[in-house]
Amino acid sequence: MNFVSDNTAGASAPVMAAIAAANDGNSPAYGTDAWTGRVERLFCDLFEHEVAVFLVTSGTAANSLALACLTRPWGAVLTHQESHVADDECGAPEFFSDGAKLVGLPGIGNKIQPELVAKTLARMREGALHQVQPQALAITQATECGLVYTPAEVRALKDAAEPRGLKLHMDGARFANALVALGCSPAEITWKAGVDVLSFGGTKNGAWAAEAVVFFDPAVAAEMKWRRKRGGHTLSKGRLIGAQFEGLLAGGHWLALARHANAMAALLADAVVKGGAARLAWPCQANAAFLILDTAAQARLKAAGIGFIAWSDTALAEADALKPGEVIGRFVMSFSTRKEDVERLISVLNG
Amino acid sequence: MNFVSDNTAGASAPVMAAIAAANDGNSPAYGTDAWTGRVERLFCDLFEHEVAVFLVTSGTAANSLALACLTRPWGAVLTHQESHVADDECGAPEFFSDGAKLVGLPGIGNKIQPELVAKTLARMREGALHQVQPQALAITQATECGLVYTPAEVRALKDAAEPRGLKLHMDGARFANALVALGCSPAEITWKAGVDVLSFGGTKNGAWAAEAVVFFDPAVAAEMKWRRKRGGHTLSKGRLIGAQFEGLLAGGHWLALARHANAMAALLADAVVKGGAARLAWPCQANAAFLILDTAAQARLKAAGIGFIAWSDTALAEADALKPGEVIGRFVMSFSTRKEDVERLISVLNG
Amino acid sequence: MNFVSDNTAGASAPVMAAIAAANDGNSPAYGTDAWTGRVERLFCDLFEHEVAVFLVTSGTAANSLALACLTRPWGAVLTHQESHVADDECGAPEFFSDGAKLVGLPGIGNKIQPELVAKTLARMREGALHQVQPQALAITQATECGLVYTPAEVRALKDAAEPRGLKLHMDGARFANALVALGCSPAEITWKAGVDVLSFGGTKNGAWAAEAVVFFDPAVAAEMKWRRKRGGHTLSKGRLIGAQFEGLLAGGHWLALARHANAMAALLADAVVKGGAARLAWPCQANAAFLILDTAAQARLKAAGIGFIAWSDTALAEADALKPGEVIGRFVMSFSTRKEDVERLISVLNG
Amino acid sequence: MNFVSDNTAGASAPVMAAIAAANDGNSPAYGTDAWTGRVERLFCDLFEHEVAVFLVTSGTAANSLALACLTRPWGAVLTHQESHVADDECGAPEFFSDGAKLVGLPGIGNKIQPELVAKTLARMREGALHQVQPQALAITQATECGLVYTPAEVRALKDAAEPRGLKLHMDGARFANALVALGCSPAEITWKAGVDVLSFGGTKNGAWAAEAVVFFDPAVAAEMKWRRKRGGHTLSKGRLIGAQFEGLLAGGHWLALARHANAMAALLADAVVKGGAARLAWPCQANAAFLILDTAAQARLKAAGIGFIAWSDTALAEADALKPGEVIGRFVMSFSTRKEDVERLISVLNG
Repeated sequence: MNFVSDNTAGASAPVMAAIAAANDGNSPAYGTDAWTGRVERLFCDLFEHEVAVFLVTSGTAANSLALACLTRPWGAVLTHQESHVADDECGAPEFFSDGAKLVGLPGIGNKIQPELVAKTLARMREGALHQVQPQALAITQATECGLVYTPAEVRALKDAAEPRGLKLHMDGARFANALVALGCSPAEITWKAGVDVLSFGGTKNGAWAAEAVVFFDPAVAAEMKWRRKRGGHTLSKGRLIGAQFEGLLAGGHWLALARHANAMAALLADAVVKGGAARLAWPCQANAAFLILDTAAQARLKAAGIGFIAWSDTALAEADALKPGEVIGRFVMSFSTRKEDVERLISVLNG
Repeated sequence: MNFVSDNTAGASAPVMAAIAAANDGNSPAYGTDAWTGRVERLFCDLFEHEVAVFLVTSGTAANSLALACLTRPWGAVLTHQESHVADDECGAPEFFSDGAKLVGLPGIGNKIQPELVAKTLARMREGALHQVQPQALAITQATECGLVYTPAEVRALKDAAEPRGLKLHMDGARFANALVALGCSPAEITWKAGVDVLSFGGTKNGAWAAEAVVFFDPAVAAEMKWRRKRGGHTLSKGRLIGAQFEGLLAGGHWLALARHANAMAALLADAVVKGGAARLAWPCQANAAFLILDTAAQARLKAAGIGFIAWSDTALAEADALKPGEVIGRFVMSFSTRKEDVERLISVLNG
Repeated sequence: MNFVSDNTAGASAPVMAAIAAANDGNSPAYGTDAWTGRVERLFCDLFEHEVAVFLVTSGTAANSLALACLTRPWGAVLTHQESHVADDECGAPEFFSDGAKLVGLPGIGNKIQPELVAKTLARMREGALHQVQPQALAITQATECGLVYTPAEVRALKDAAEPRGLKLHMDGARFANALVALGCSPAEITWKAGVDVLSFGGTKNGAWAAEAVVFFDPAVAAEMKWRRKRGGHTLSKGRLIGAQFEGLLAGGHWLALARHANAMAALLADAVVKGGAARLAWPCQANAAFLILDTAAQARLKAAGIGFIAWSDTALAEADALKPGEVIGRFVMSFSTRKEDVERLISVLNG
Repeated sequence: MNFVSDNTAGASAPVMAAIAAANDGNSPAYGTDAWTGRVERLFCDLFEHEVAVFLVTSGTAANSLALACLTRPWGAVLTHQESHVADDECGAPEFFSDGAKLVGLPGIGNKIQPELVAKTLARMREGALHQVQPQALAITQATECGLVYTPAEVRALKDAAEPRGLKLHMDGARFANALVALGCSPAEITWKAGVDVLSFGGTKNGAWAAEAVVFFDPAVAAEMKWRRKRGGHTLSKGRLIGAQFEGLLAGGHWLALARHANAMAALLADAVVKGGAARLAWPCQANAAFLILDTAAQARLKAAGIGFIAWSDTALAEADALKPGEVIGRFVMSFSTRKEDVERLISVLNG
């Protein structure tokens, strides 16, 4: 039993069924198939907006290709210093952008604040030959620490960045989890709040390998087809990704999967707060609970063979939030997490 | 009914079954799963050699990552001027290698000749500051024109390239088709003949999206894990690819699929030669027949709604091999090509 | 005594004097100095056109930065297969352009023909995902073989390339030599004939290290300041280059220097044609004579200790233009070549 | 009268004389000339060590090429967050290294501390697929704030970095100023203290455009010749740089120039401390004084037409070291700064 990540599961049954259903006959290659075409329309409907959509198989590809479309090689992307794009993709954004710079900002729970964006931009002289030029702001929704930006918060970030012409990218590897937590529409938390490009995550949500880069202004996507091809991310049998998204999006299946994952995380978080066996590093807002575990709790988990990731966090470290021996345990729930496993985890934690 | 490519089909039934069978429970992410591990061993067995194997989802990724491991940015890759890596990947090898140069050589049927390799190398001064340095030779097996290199031919190419230290890459998008055509072992046509790295194609063979980069000297693969990750090609749910390869490789299924495809191409080619309704641009050695079609034959195919690709070929063009109005039609067979469709095609061709 | 290259001399006296004259007091850095400013105006006057000018210290930098401004990484530059940018800069254009492809065309004396440009473009499918997209045509004036394009020839090349939107780059490492050979104005052989960007060479002409990238449409130069800085080519003490150009351009000094060099080459070529001791590989049009030397002539040169470069040329090789033992000797004249040295060379050649 | 930078002067008289003396006759191109050869030996003598030396014309080129030789594209360079390489070269290190990441560390006066290096390395998991891998540590000597690292401090930094295999790069744009401040030998502050590669600055010291990349282990320089050429930094008339270095290094001229510049800065700093018209942001250790100026002092300088740069510094800003209205003024002295100008500045400051 482990809670290491939401990428350790396979695919949901409807996703598998959609793949199976797509496995007949011939279809044109390289994303010109009917499945991909239908998914492109689905995204327009979903976001109540004309969008340009590019399907790929990994979140790293989605994020890096998106950021490459928003920057020039001498550009800079402002992002949280421990965001996935900055710290977990082995420099893929630098690779795809031919060397743009990621400027890391601090912030609690991997959220960045508009004031810090403004202050950072003020230090970067516009047009000054010697410095890279800020061109994009990248946020993660939900963040790597399981926190969620509200539409107002997203808007405030865009307002801080827009005067200098920055585009706003949202890494939505867990977009569905954020969305059901917020209870708003996809449009409200994206283009209506100022998002220019979204990496819409399907893989952690319940697909095998399905991510969509969604451009709310198709003009921004002008170079994307070349970049995706050149990056080896234009699958010949593109319906494999199209079918996964059809399976996810049909009948709100993706939201149901996210609701389940979030509920499992809430179940754990509530029990922890109540039980006092650990405390939350941050509020549990999406599908992950980050628990500060003392040595006794760690020992109990180890004895029970329950897997999780020991999380390192600069903001908490600098705030001296941990007592000696304590660690932050990340427990992530997926669409396939079983309630009885969470209950067993709670019972182990509570001793 | 169309014969446009062998990438327009879906996946074979055993591949689908393998994916379905892999869809239970949790497994570690990023290629550390059991399926991937088993496939790595399968490749060692298959090639009777210790190999380092990296699974990806596209042939462009496989080829480009492989070539990037064989070159430095000021390096050159000798290849056929119309090979897939040179002419059909939108510059992906240049992207992944940070700007290495592909040096295109002419040759009939996209095969390159050892003499021309030697002559080209002689013109590239070793260590000369002003010129890129030759570091790899890349061949396609079977070629984009459906021709096959014998082990002796591969060895002769390596012998021409090795004195200057070039590594030999084989783009095996249709490796299975070549192998069954040759009737030799995987070892004989690869490392025993001098191949250093193979892009082993699963997608066209019968998978959805499964390619393996096989390094016969694991030391050459030292940088591959970083390159693959940084390229966004390290899938989190890596068992998706692992399972496809398990499905393909079990019980020689991959060879059976290739044999069928080759047989369908031979059926067509033989009928054409016999019937005289068209002539072969090159001998049909693998799973594609390239037919020189006069205007009448073109009209019959169009009327029958039979799809194919009009091929352009520099060598034939320069040899004035086509009469006015003639085109080269590429007819590619896949694992799923039906015999009755090929027979119908033959009957249309024969008028 | 050697005729190896026109880059083995130092600087002309007026250039040295201009540097010395610039060596007083303080001036703003990074190209904002008065010398650079004046040179920018001089170029506008010289070309009778508003131009954007960027000074650098090497021809490789000038060419590569220029081509990078004309292409995207998935773009292609058509050029002669043995042009300096294709074959003599160790892949610098690929480096600066983040991986664009140089497509090499054959042609006698390193000149390319409009028909071949058109034919090559026809093979490169517009907008096709799988192929790099042609975006620039690069010619050398005078060519590496000492030939000169007339304004009509340049226009014909542009006419062949423009329908596909290609920009025309002229590598003018020996622009002055071409210009005095043609007897036309700088405007006539550049923007009036369709040139979009010129690498204006000062170094071989008589400076130490001074090249100017001249954009005839300043909009095309929009990214140049970032690219130059990022490439380490924005000198802090920029007046060093500005002063060299002031020294060259004042009073037509640059043209006088080129006239001398060309005259020295003509002296040699005429004597060779007359004397019959060797024959010309190509007509001598600028400041270099390419002599086909038999073994006796080679021996006499060696005995006399006269240095030259043994040239390799694909077009001549394929035409079997050389008899056994013959080599092509390149003899390049510079502003500082002495007439008595050329006369001595002639006398040695004539035996 | 301005104190904006030490790059606003021209070249010292001996440097100019050396260039003039080099301007006779022909010499081989691309750094194979006699001047460059002699300079290479001079550097070996100077550092009492076999070194590989590569001459270029800009500090950005020197630093970026050096760092590119120390990293792979998925590598990271630890450096001060406001160092020249991180913040003042428009991303050149990222460009030359094909996308390596610069990890910025805080620190007073742009000096970085071994403890922070160790702590940062501890957070970067060795071999972990998802993170860039630390491969170099880059320090500036003297720092951009005019502070100097002692040999013991350099050694401590290397000791913190070496267990993870990092190479140590020293940006010595003002190496001479640091050296005379320290009073040690070039060897003591470089390879004896753990420096692997040094950017030895000649330009600010008194040359026009002359920087040397000095590798203390020639094996580390293996790729440098390709990188320099490909970057357009291999001058054809290489003796231009060689001669400048000969002029600088002969008879300890370079040290005399640096001593003068440092003395001018000390003169100013001492007067300020004594006079109380401003206070020092940091101790004045090399050739620059950073003065915290109140509004009255700013007004007096403005009225007197004395130029300087208003410096922004994160560490001081975060320490709230400035009162409202105060700015940090950077006053940099060069080899050519006149004592009477400094005295006039002091008198203006003291009101």
